[in-house]
Amino acid sequence: MLNSSILLSAAERFGTPFYLYDVDFITERVERVYRFFKQFDFHLAYAVKANFNLDILKRLNELGTMVDIVSFGEYEQVRKAGFTPDRIVVNGNCKSSGELKHYVSDGVFCINLDSFEELLRLEKLADKPVRVAIRVNPDVDPKTHPHIATGLKENKFGVDYETAERMVQLISKSRFIRLVGLHCHIGSQIVEVGPFKEAFESMRNFASKLGLNLELVNLGGGWGIDYGDGRQLDLNEYEKEIFPILKGFGAKVLLELGRWIVAPAGFLVTKVEYVKRTKNKTFIVVDAGMSHLIRPALYGAKHRIEPLYPTNHRPTIVADVVGPVCESADTFAKGLKLPEPKEGELVVIRDVGAYGYAMSSHYNLLRKAPEVIYSKENYLRASSA
Amino acid sequence: MLNSSILLSAAERFGTPFYLYDVDFITERVERVYRFFKQFDFHLAYAVKANFNLDILKRLNELGTMVDIVSFGEYEQVRKAGFTPDRIVVNGNCKSSGELKHYVSDGVFCINLDSFEELLRLEKLADKPVRVAIRVNPDVDPKTHPHIATGLKENKFGVDYETAERMVQLISKSRFIRLVGLHCHIGSQIVEVGPFKEAFESMRNFASKLGLNLELVNLGGGWGIDYGDGRQLDLNEYEKEIFPILKGFGAKVLLELGRWIVAPAGFLVTKVEYVKRTKNKTFIVVDAGMSHLIRPALYGAKHRIEPLYPTNHRPTIVADVVGPVCESADTFAKGLKLPEPKEGELVVIRDVGAYGYAMSSHYNLLRKAPEVIYSKENYLRASSA
Repeated sequence: MLNSSILLSAAERFGTPFYLYDVDFITERVERVYRFFKQFDFHLAYAVKANFNLDILKRLNELGTMVDIVSFGEYEQVRKAGFTPDRIVVNGNCKSSGELKHYVSDGVFCINLDSFEELLRLEKLADKPVRVAIRVNPDVDPKTHPHIATGLKENKFGVDYETAERMVQLISKSRFIRLVGLHCHIGSQIVEVGPFKEAFESMRNFASKLGLNLELVNLGGGWGIDYGDGRQLDLNEYEKEIFPILKGFGAKVLLELGRWIVAPAGFLVTKVEYVKRTKNKTFIVVDAGMSHLIRPALYGAKHRIEPLYPTNHRPTIVADVVGPVCESADTFAKGLKLPEPKEGELVVIRDVGAYGYAMSSHYNLLRKAPEVIYSKENYLRASSA
Repeated sequence: MLNSSILLSAAERFGTPFYLYDVDFITERVERVYRFFKQFDFHLAYAVKANFNLDILKRLNELGTMVDIVSFGEYEQVRKAGFTPDRIVVNGNCKSSGELKHYVSDGVFCINLDSFEELLRLEKLADKPVRVAIRVNPDVDPKTHPHIATGLKENKFGVDYETAERMVQLISKSRFIRLVGLHCHIGSQIVEVGPFKEAFESMRNFASKLGLNLELVNLGGGWGIDYGDGRQLDLNEYEKEIFPILKGFGAKVLLELGRWIVAPAGFLVTKVEYVKRTKNKTFIVVDAGMSHLIRPALYGAKHRIEPLYPTNHRPTIVADVVGPVCESADTFAKGLKLPEPKEGELVVIRDVGAYGYAMSSHYNLLRKAPEVIYSKENYLRASSA
């Protein structure tokens, strides 16, 4: 983790609560994933939904990644960050006609079609060549939280292989639509290699059954990070199990990673407003709440919470860490053991670079947490967006 | 429900998705609750957290209600809407010293103390008279969603009766702090009278045991509305069971209602972007998502979804109603039977006036839904906040 004195000086300058992103860490992650896939014609398509911060996007643009966007709002944001359309992959299950026209006209790298109906719409409006991939739904259980499992047949995303085959046929007769790839996305925070293997093998089988000559495969499903319980995707196993399948495609490989790139780079620093003792329990009441970070309330997510105060000679207490929101869901940890904090001292909630600020709200009219950018080069500065 | 032609003309004017609030309905609800309690010295303290829309707050200010606020952001909002401090009840479990000073200096109607520690803080900083109530935690199961149960001993809110007694003693010696009441809040969307009875009886027993001469009792716990399953709080039973207890207090009665006042007044109108058919399921993909209304994802809430299109001669289909967000949690209904819509037609999601817009986010960088105000007098207008 980055030096806690950096978090403390950011707190002095920006007040609490605030998000801090270590963009050097993000750079390292990006470089690592490119090294990992160096034997392939590979591109990272960063999943903007994890964190749409403009400074992070600008850094990724400098690093030369591609981006995966899921709405027109995200499209506008990545364009603002400098991404040219030929480095933008368009996802999403609800593309309007107006948005599709815009993507065709701008010449995006690839539109991932989510449905037969979307293909019909695109066929009707395309007036110049447009590159597409079909998002297949391989009906694979990613063994993650049900909210973020996306590749089961009951999920709203993608199409079954029968429908995909009909789409391939329709595209083959299209004047402007060109099938360049297959896409899947089976879920987020996946810590087992098995579900990836199952999904990618079924895609490969589909491609070879139809004799598809694919330029690319876009293999979604987010790599699971270690939130503190020691469980994360094992990249050695991934290499062993998945690389042979990727070679089988003989195509450019695109990966949509968001969380794995940015989550551990993010820190939410919050102040202990009260240490509240009741007959039954002790509560550490902090000034960040579910309006700032909804993952614990929404997914039952557990984030590491660590003291930013001197811990010598402090008794260990067992406490619930709770926020200021008027709802019992506003709880970051239950029964946490930690050295007793004093009112006004700070703690850091870790691994919040993904799905943190991006999901924040004005619930209870709490102000949104400012975003602070850290890099060795520029030290600390307020984020420009 | 208000005439669907009103929703359709609002859609033409404001695009989709949008929230519409019927402020005449809100007025009726307020008048009804004052009639219901007419035998008491009664005040409604509207729970701003349910919906902080400025036009709604202005209407409530005209109607002469009080307000219950839980953050300094909400305090500023109700002041902007015209509420004077003497009509503001301050709740919340995380009041900072700066905020408390502000409330004391402005002379708010009452500060509901959430903890012994907050009392110590207030005692230290109060430099003029300040009226407080003690929020007791009666350890009652409100039989609602665990996220919004707030009066169990494991919940972060309020204090046990032992602690409350220590607080009473400390306040009795205070120079500036004056105990005017007791407060409790046991949860939200409560449909059974039993938990209220249990909570209020235990408060009454506590008050009489200590011989407290209370000016007011603030009896929180939100009245459950009928979201379409026929379950709601029975007001006849409430009158029968609860009124005798209220009389026993011999004090002014304050009630913190939010949802019951505004939820049925709110409509979320959304467009069917696709009717997506897969081998396994049909999906109605609408342009509103969990970023606009998170209740289904967060609480498993079910809202009525009704067509705003001609339903004659339409076959009935069974479909999941899903939004545009890249997450499987973004589902408003599963296996809903409804007359088949066409792309571009509208549906309305009902009872979203509470905890709808107030919890909305920019997730996936979807634009926030505009808020539209409807009244017979002024017809439709964009909300000023």
